[in-house]
Amino acid sequence: MALLGCGVVGSQVARLLLESPDDLQARVGRPIELVGIGVRHPDAERPGIDPGLLTGDCESLVTRADIVVEVIGGLEPARALIRRAIDHGASVVTANKALLAAHGPELYQAAQRAGVDLYFEAAVAGAIPIVRPLRESLVGDEITTVMGVVNGTTNYILDQMTTDGLSFSAALAQAQELGYAEADPTADVEGYDAAAKASILASLAFHTEIAGDDVHREGITTLTAEDIAAASRLGYVVKLLAVATLTEEEPPRVSVRVHPAMVPSDHPLASVRGAYNAVFVESRNAGHLMFLGPGAGGAPTASAVMGDLVTVGRNRARGTHGPAMTAYTNRSVAPIGDARTSYYISLMVQDSPGVLARVASVFGKHGVSIAAVRQTPAADGAMLGIMTHAAREAEVQDTVSELKTVSSAVIGRIRQLRVEGQ
Amino acid sequence: MALLGCGVVGSQVARLLLESPDDLQARVGRPIELVGIGVRHPDAERPGIDPGLLTGDCESLVTRADIVVEVIGGLEPARALIRRAIDHGASVVTANKALLAAHGPELYQAAQRAGVDLYFEAAVAGAIPIVRPLRESLVGDEITTVMGVVNGTTNYILDQMTTDGLSFSAALAQAQELGYAEADPTADVEGYDAAAKASILASLAFHTEIAGDDVHREGITTLTAEDIAAASRLGYVVKLLAVATLTEEEPPRVSVRVHPAMVPSDHPLASVRGAYNAVFVESRNAGHLMFLGPGAGGAPTASAVMGDLVTVGRNRARGTHGPAMTAYTNRSVAPIGDARTSYYISLMVQDSPGVLARVASVFGKHGVSIAAVRQTPAADGAMLGIMTHAAREAEVQDTVSELKTVSSAVIGRIRQLRVEGQ
Repeated sequence: MALLGCGVVGSQVARLLLESPDDLQARVGRPIELVGIGVRHPDAERPGIDPGLLTGDCESLVTRADIVVEVIGGLEPARALIRRAIDHGASVVTANKALLAAHGPELYQAAQRAGVDLYFEAAVAGAIPIVRPLRESLVGDEITTVMGVVNGTTNYILDQMTTDGLSFSAALAQAQELGYAEADPTADVEGYDAAAKASILASLAFHTEIAGDDVHREGITTLTAEDIAAASRLGYVVKLLAVATLTEEEPPRVSVRVHPAMVPSDHPLASVRGAYNAVFVESRNAGHLMFLGPGAGGAPTASAVMGDLVTVGRNRARGTHGPAMTAYTNRSVAPIGDARTSYYISLMVQDSPGVLARVASVFGKHGVSIAAVRQTPAADGAMLGIMTHAAREAEVQDTVSELKTVSSAVIGRIRQLRVEGQ
Repeated sequence: MALLGCGVVGSQVARLLLESPDDLQARVGRPIELVGIGVRHPDAERPGIDPGLLTGDCESLVTRADIVVEVIGGLEPARALIRRAIDHGASVVTANKALLAAHGPELYQAAQRAGVDLYFEAAVAGAIPIVRPLRESLVGDEITTVMGVVNGTTNYILDQMTTDGLSFSAALAQAQELGYAEADPTADVEGYDAAAKASILASLAFHTEIAGDDVHREGITTLTAEDIAAASRLGYVVKLLAVATLTEEEPPRVSVRVHPAMVPSDHPLASVRGAYNAVFVESRNAGHLMFLGPGAGGAPTASAVMGDLVTVGRNRARGTHGPAMTAYTNRSVAPIGDARTSYYISLMVQDSPGVLARVASVFGKHGVSIAAVRQTPAADGAMLGIMTHAAREAEVQDTVSELKTVSSAVIGRIRQLRVEGQ
């Protein structure tokens, strides 16, 4: 086997490969020999790693191995190297969610044509076993929703905003200081990373092709400490959720999105703290399941990679391969306007007769049913908090747009946050 | 394929087999044909099931199928039928924890010799995918502890004792009324069911043979509402835990036991409510993981059976089989006296000078280190609550035995409860 990449994850994979070869052999059923580690700077010193294993020539390395583990990350050269490995008959283990979200189908099909494995447990939710459970354990069931906290950076930031009342920027700065967020936090805080994982989860759960670009995406940068405090007063916690669900029509479409949402504080996902991840699955027969664990980090991610490596090694030892990605349902993706969620909408209104009726009539006109209303006096008017029943996104947005035009009643900004897991 | 048993689980498996054959075929890669259902009373009416499929002749049925699903339960005839199926070249899916706890190694070895699959996701924690995660996802890691709430009946009873302050017998009666507990609740409340699951979890996690009889077992029948209320006052929840852990020696032994324990209320296992199950895994690289879901019931268990059926069907379609049970580490089982846990010990003492010193000296003499003490005045003396650091079970029991002899200080019964998950 060959290892591509020797950074945070790769160095941990190398350590695990080299530290207990006997265990590894017993579990695979034959020895696993590391023939080389492809890196950008083969001359850099790497403690514990034989310099003779290091090479800058990844193109050649991948043709010399029966299994290639890719932990470089990013689209290129990862994509080209994996293609080359597959085309040379190697099985591949990757932790690269961005690559699978962008080029998954190309790679899944190439692997299937070549009769090799492409495993990627580490690409979603780090060390949490979720790919195998979806692809194998639940394959005899009908999954209706997968919903997860799949980005540790944003969960840490939201946690700090919740427990310490920090602003988004203060919590981000703290996360950066502690190494939980990168200098350029865009991929995390704008939801790109979670969207890549959502597309993989949706593809697995619904047996269809979902790309990262199919995922509606909203980040957490506009959330305020007040949004979070208001949610908390109502008994909710704000999480950045990746949600993939089947619409209720025949045939169903896939609604897949990443956005902050209020989650009831007694929901299992509400208790996911710090940089932990969790994936909540609703299926027709198994009911509600949750998978919780560390969502990132060198050793946890390496654990997931090693599990795949042993499985792929076992398969090769008996001349077979594991289940391929199936996309037989060929579901279409519902636009975000067709998504159905509850909303919590808060707005300041004039404290004068008829205002509540005026506001409520706007909801009614657009068919958005109100579940609860709370009006509290405020300095320069009244604060209205409105919880809706599940409603079509397009109708909620039409409601909010029209509310903005009710200038005689509505003062200032209208805040809205989706509510999930009720 | 053939189905053995058509009760709570079997009828759900039959339903799933018959209701979406196209999905099943797409997922397996070839059709799955149900050739017969073996039942004790083939003439009984079963709605939705073609009477022509029913047979009382299980011995013959298992020789006519390439895959046999066993959901009869119990040791015999399940064992003999599975052996017969394997020896005739069939792969087997079973939900039978008692059978695997008693005869697992015989069946695993028979399957391996015959080159067929023996899958049993449904045997532990119902619909929760835990067998595959342990056997495949975490196979490149070193698991150090598996700890779970794996019996829904006892969890429901303890939940009722906790939230409503019920006595054990009142909570049991309620559970029986609601169908959560059987008329003869022994297997659940005495921990036999959990012990069977613990032995399977330990075998998987530590790559060794652990039988149900290797599991130290204590039930929940002697717990009182006051035990649970006292735990609650200290910030703990009482759960019936199945614990399998490696001892800290070289080579490690396996400590495996089922008993009630106090779990800190912020531990993920503390939030497992009602008839839900959860398994908490500690591993060297992946860190802490938890798997949560419905632990029993017809449809959830059938979901796990169907996942195995699809996997086994895929394997047969490509002429291969999945990973066999490995037992290469050949670990020995540590006796309960060598288990290390914290204890909470409460006792009534005379409220007179020197008593605390006298009691504390008994702990010290046996090398049991005290982590916290709380003394509260009581009607006829003083109540002492003592939390120990982790200590050898044998030393704790010696301490308690000697405390009983301190008749000048100790009044009445000494209560003790293990503490896990701190």
